[in-house]
Formats: sequence, structure tokens, C-alpha cells
Amino acid sequence: MAIEAAADAGGGFGARIIALADRLAQWSEASDGLTCTYLTSTHRAVAAQLQEWMVSAGMATTIDAAGNVVGRWAAADPAARALLLCSHYDTVRNAGKYDGRLGILVALVLVERLRALGVRLPFHLDVVAFSEEEGVRFSASFLGSSALAGRFDPALLERCDADGQTMAGVVRAAGLDPAAISSLARRADTLAGYLEVHIEQGPVLLEEGLPVGVVSAIAGTVRRAITITGMAGHAGTVPMGRRHDAVAAAAELVLYVERRCAQGATLVGTVGRLTVPNGAINIIPGRCDLSLDVRAADDATRDAAMADIEGEIQRIAARRGVAIESQELQRTPAVKCSPRLQSLLAAAVSRQGIVPRYLPSGAGHDAMMFDGLTDVAMLFVRCGNGGVSHSPRETITAEDAEVAVRVLLDAVVMMAEGDATLPGEDGRSPV
Amino acid sequence: MAIEAAADAGGGFGARIIALADRLAQWSEASDGLTCTYLTSTHRAVAAQLQEWMVSAGMATTIDAAGNVVGRWAAADPAARALLLCSHYDTVRNAGKYDGRLGILVALVLVERLRALGVRLPFHLDVVAFSEEEGVRFSASFLGSSALAGRFDPALLERCDADGQTMAGVVRAAGLDPAAISSLARRADTLAGYLEVHIEQGPVLLEEGLPVGVVSAIAGTVRRAITITGMAGHAGTVPMGRRHDAVAAAAELVLYVERRCAQGATLVGTVGRLTVPNGAINIIPGRCDLSLDVRAADDATRDAAMADIEGEIQRIAARRGVAIESQELQRTPAVKCSPRLQSLLAAAVSRQGIVPRYLPSGAGHDAMMFDGLTDVAMLFVRCGNGGVSHSPRETITAEDAEVAVRVLLDAVVMMAEGDATLPGEDGRSPV
Repeated sequence: MAIEAAADAGGGFGARIIALADRLAQWSEASDGLTCTYLTSTHRAVAAQLQEWMVSAGMATTIDAAGNVVGRWAAADPAARALLLCSHYDTVRNAGKYDGRLGILVALVLVERLRALGVRLPFHLDVVAFSEEEGVRFSASFLGSSALAGRFDPALLERCDADGQTMAGVVRAAGLDPAAISSLARRADTLAGYLEVHIEQGPVLLEEGLPVGVVSAIAGTVRRAITITGMAGHAGTVPMGRRHDAVAAAAELVLYVERRCAQGATLVGTVGRLTVPNGAINIIPGRCDLSLDVRAADDATRDAAMADIEGEIQRIAARRGVAIESQELQRTPAVKCSPRLQSLLAAAVSRQGIVPRYLPSGAGHDAMMFDGLTDVAMLFVRCGNGGVSHSPRETITAEDAEVAVRVLLDAVVMMAEGDATLPGEDGRSPV
Repeated sequence: MAIEAAADAGGGFGARIIALADRLAQWSEASDGLTCTYLTSTHRAVAAQLQEWMVSAGMATTIDAAGNVVGRWAAADPAARALLLCSHYDTVRNAGKYDGRLGILVALVLVERLRALGVRLPFHLDVVAFSEEEGVRFSASFLGSSALAGRFDPALLERCDADGQTMAGVVRAAGLDPAAISSLARRADTLAGYLEVHIEQGPVLLEEGLPVGVVSAIAGTVRRAITITGMAGHAGTVPMGRRHDAVAAAAELVLYVERRCAQGATLVGTVGRLTVPNGAINIIPGRCDLSLDVRAADDATRDAAMADIEGEIQRIAARRGVAIESQELQRTPAVKCSPRLQSLLAAAVSRQGIVPRYLPSGAGHDAMMFDGLTDVAMLFVRCGNGGVSHSPRETITAEDAEVAVRVLLDAVVMMAEGDATLPGEDGRSPV
């Protein structure tokens, strides 16, 4: 049948994905390294390129009010449900080329393959390139996926970026309608599921010699903005014992976060931003602003660490005579992936002759937004360079990208054949 | 005699100084708080105002190639030596109104008084408002005073500010000639000495109930720029034990500097600037840049602390697998003030009915630049608010400014009378 042909033939997917990722990386906000943050001109150019590729692949496309690039490989029946194949195209600063974009390109190449063979599925395939996941510009993550999942918080539209521009203003300046974001929410009864391919961003698959793995759960995250207010003073005249140095207080907090978060297997804690407003070489810092990001595969572990950190904040403030304000920016619970879709992906992995490896994700992903709305699952792809990500040193191989396409294509075909749990009886890979 | 009349009469000096400092503080680079850094439009406006006031006080004035505002209350004999009365008009960011500017205004008011009485001295009085002392814009201090003292390093002209502008370019853009800075150096045989009035910027005089004090020595400073290079990574996926977090390394260093510098009575150490380039809430910092400023009243104490800090830097780098580069930006030896001029100031203080208090300066001052070129001395004026400085909370009283003018005027008169060491035999104050 036509559907089986789609998965049987192929080859060259991986090399094409590497080439497309290189093309996307040519746009950057920075002259050195890759940076693509929400609704900058760079970001808009990447969206336009993705839309062009989706059109070429035969998809009906739109860029929605949140800046998501949505392409549909339509089923014959317009009333069919949609299977979402998604990831994000924004990046952190000085990023790698594959975080987020790999998942979009795997889905794009998959549709190109279906089109080449003239295959229609019994469900729509909605390839969605989410506009924002990293939270760089507005210190708020998942802007694109939260809109589609009906979880977008309209209050964020008043939040300002570092230049003092509101999100609403930025959306309008891009020719989009902030008031329409809330109407992007998909209804559960229109969805067949959510699948996301993503680089692992860690060392597990690399160390175990596996090209791909099946995500079992996604760690929950708490993020806080912390402001320490001490007392500015002259660096030469205030004795050490009489200082209220905001940076010294911050240093104690940084080291406590590091020590405390070393006490759990899946627990991690990071101070990624730290600034001294108006800092000068000869002034005792009177203020220090920092960010805190704490995660664990289960919420109880994470919340226990957060409680201890809050306690330490109080102790540091009291001991040093400084004021420490801590404001929660984000709290996302840990998410368990769908057992049905995990089995589907694992079956497809097996049919490539690869042992299915289940592993939790320490990173947050757009998939989390769809928890409770539809079944979600994720396929991880091995990273090189020790698993480094959020860095120009992030790498994958064309061979691993090829495997990801074959696994996803096989999973989609199996889902289309109505057998979402088992490989073919002969164990033969259809890709 | 006319000279004695100059010192006998007076009053209202202090209130005028407070009013003039308020006038100067109306110009700022920042909308909130006072900031005036080297050769900005704000800085040029302040220079123009100072020049106008010097002209009104009857001085021959110029703005020299380094941006110093120089006013001369000339002696009858053009070949006379010059007594320098100096301080600086630049500020740190979010500064107080008196750091630097008080010394200029005391000298200005002193000349206004001489002029009102038609008094000429046997030496020129050169009132110099130095353009740069704080080192904010180019991470290099004493730009104005080093030029006059013949210690200006022309290599600094190629140093860039935060916007990438070279100092030479900034000087040229202000209509000044960078090549002429070296020719500003004064010769020792043209100088009669150097006196600087400055706020204490510390709590000693406040706690002892004294309006002024005589500076015995000025602490030497070592400043370094430190760059920590770790490994950027995803905040969710890299286990705590496998991180090379540049901010955590910086935190250890900050706390070591704090501990080590608490071990000496006059020793202080400060990390005033600390930045995470491209920092984001969900990225393990791959880099952290910080400044270090260490001072003590004697060079041996300071250098021992610096050696220990350098050792700790090596240990942190080795233990954490990060690279730490440390570059010396400045090294100024501690300076002993002239015994002759200290005695002169102490005599003038006594004649105001105040016990002379000798105290070292933990802050660096322009006076240091003239060590070895001519005799230098400083008069400290009491600060309020616990001695805070480099802060909008910096305060002085009009009464204390009045005392400073009277002491300096009396000291100048005594020097003019050829008795630089003793008060009048009757102990009567001439002010």
C-alpha cells in the first residue's frame, strides 16, 4: 500500500536536515554565533524561510498571531483529527543549530517524503514551528506552544524586554494581532496526539552508543528572579566588616544552590543571569540581580530543594544585612509522557534494530504544554561533544538525523495503520 | 596686611559650596541619580560651568587637552611657583555630589575671597578641576591628574570604552588634541606644592565628632580585570557534578576576596563589576567577567593579599576545570603625605579650635599622582550617613565645608607669610 511505500523507501534525509539547519543558522541577531529571539527581524526571516519550505512540501501554511509557523499535510477528510509534529525555531543567545530546529526539520522532511509518494494519512499532520520556547527575550518560555495548547497567559503581553518594549508592542510591530493569540488554542477533540523530536542536550545517549531514545518524563521547572539590595559604598574606605555587599551575598547564594542541587540524581539548579546594575570597579555593589532555575524529574524533589534555597536566602539576608526579594517567574510541573505513544516510538526504534532506551528529560520542552490536552511523547536524538547544548559546540550527525526521520515516519505510518503499539509481526522495519 | 585680612574676614563659604555642588549635580548622564563620566556631554557641560565660575572669580582659565579646567589666581611675579589646589569633577555612576567636587569648590571660594579683598600671593594659586579620577569610562583612573603630573600613559589613548570608542577618539570628539596631553606635564621647579580637600568617604571623622582631618598617607591600589571561561550548557541537562560554571567559580573568588581582605586593619578588597556575557536564565554560564580592587595603607600588606588571591584563583581554576585570566589594570603604590604640609594643615586646623586628627586614606586620590614631583597633602572633610560615598546618600554639612575653606585659606596665608610649619605665636586664628 501507498502508506507502507512511504516508510519503505527513503535515504538522504539526514544530510538534508543538516543542510537545512545550516541554512537557518545563517540568520542571527549577533555577528558572532547564532542568536534568534522572539520576533526580531532575524526571527521573522527564519519564520519566512520555514514557511517557504512548508509550502514547497505541499503544506497549507500560516504564520499565526503568536508567530508560530503552521503547516498542514491534510488528510482526505477535512474533519479528521490532527497529529501535531512540533518543535521551536527560536534559540538562546550564542546557540547551537539543532536545539528546537531539528524537530521541525525532521517533520518537514517527513512530509516531503509523504508528498513525493503521494501519500495521504487518515489524520492531518500539523507541522508546527513554535515561535518561542527559550524564554530569552521576555523571561517567559513556551510562548508559541502555550498559545496552541490554550495555556497562554495574556498578562505576559504587558511584560517588557530589556529595551522596555512590551510583548504586545513587539507582536504588533511584527504585523501580528496580540488579541488573537488566545483564539489559537486547539481543542482536545481535534487532536490525535503530539510528537516532538529534539536533541537530548545531555550525555546519556552518547555514552550508551544510541542514536535515539524515548523520553519517559520531562522535568518540571521553577524559575525565580532574585534582587539583592545591599549598600553601595566606596571600595577603599568601608572596612570589610561593615559592608553590605550585594555581590558577596549573591556569591553565597550561588554556591548554596550548587551544593543543594548536587543532592538529587535528577535535580539541577542554575544561576544563569547575574548582573550588578551600575557596577564599577571602585564601588561596593549595592545591588545584584540574578536568575534561578531549579528542575527535577519529580516535583517533590524540586520543591524540597526550592524550600531549602528560600530558607538560605533568608539566612543570607539576615546575616549580611541585605534585602533579598525573590519572585517566581515560572512553575511547570513534571510531565509523564503517554505510555501509548512511548510504546509506539519504542516499537519504531526497535524496527530500526536499535534497543529502545527510555530516559527522562532534564530540559523543558514544548511537549509539556500539551500534557492533559492530548497524548504527548518525545524522541531524543544523540548530541556530540559530551552532550553540550545551548552552545555553538552543539552537534549531531546526519546519520542520527536519518534514524530520527525513519523512526518518526515509521511511527506515523503505524499510527495510520491503526496499530499504535506493536511493530509488524515479522519485525521488519518499514522505513 | 592685606593677606591677613583675607583670612580674617569671611563667612557664608559653606552655604555657597553646598549651593554650587547642587548646581553641578543638575547635569547627569542618567535620569535617576548623578553620573558624570569622562568627556560625555554632561561632563563637558560641568567643565564649562566650572570655567565660567573661575572666570568670574578673576582667574585666567583654560580647558587643557585632557579636559582639566585650570584657573590661575596669578602672583604679581609671572615667574613665581604655583601652589596647586586640585580635585576632580567626574563621578562614579549614581554618585554623590561632593566626591571630588568639594575640593574644587573650596579652592574656588577661596580665590573668590582673595579677589574680593584684592589680595595677591607670592605664588600662583592654580585651581585645577581634574577631568577624570574615577576610572569609570575607560577602566583607567587619574586621567586628568596623571597628565598634569607627567605620568599619563599614552597607550591608554587606544583603550576602548563600553561602546567601543577609543579614548583618543573621545578626546578628539570633544575638540581636544590627544597628542597634546603629554605636554601638560608640570615641572617640579615650577611648583610650590599640592593641596587637595576631599570628603573622607569613611566613618572616622563622623564617629570622632571632627569636621576635618589631616591625611597621613593614601592607600595603594591594585586593580585587575578577571575573565573566567567555563563551559556553557543547558541548565536542565548537565548534572551538577559535570558542570564548569563560570559564575560558580566567580562566586568562590568573591567570597575568598572577602575573607582574605578581612585579615588586615587597612586592607580592603572589592569585586565591583561582575557580568555574565549573554547570560540567560536557562544556560549554565560559560563566561563571567569581574573586576578586583585591593588596597591597603602599606604596599606589603596589599601585595601579600594579592598573592594569596592569585593562588586561590589557580586553585579554583584547577578544581573546577575553568580558565581564569587575570590582567592588571592599575598599580598605584601607597603615598606618604608631606610632613611639612601636614604640619601646615594641622596648624591651620588647630587655629580653628579643632584637634588635628591624622588619618590614612583608604580611597585613592589625585594627590597620589604628584608624589615625588612636589610636596602633597590632603584635608579630609567629614561625611554624614555613616561615611557613605559613591552613593546618592553621600552628604556633608555647610558648617563643615565652611571649616574646610577657613583651614585651607589659613594654610595658604601661612604659606604666603613664609611660615609653613607654625601657627601665629598668639595662637589666634587668622580666618
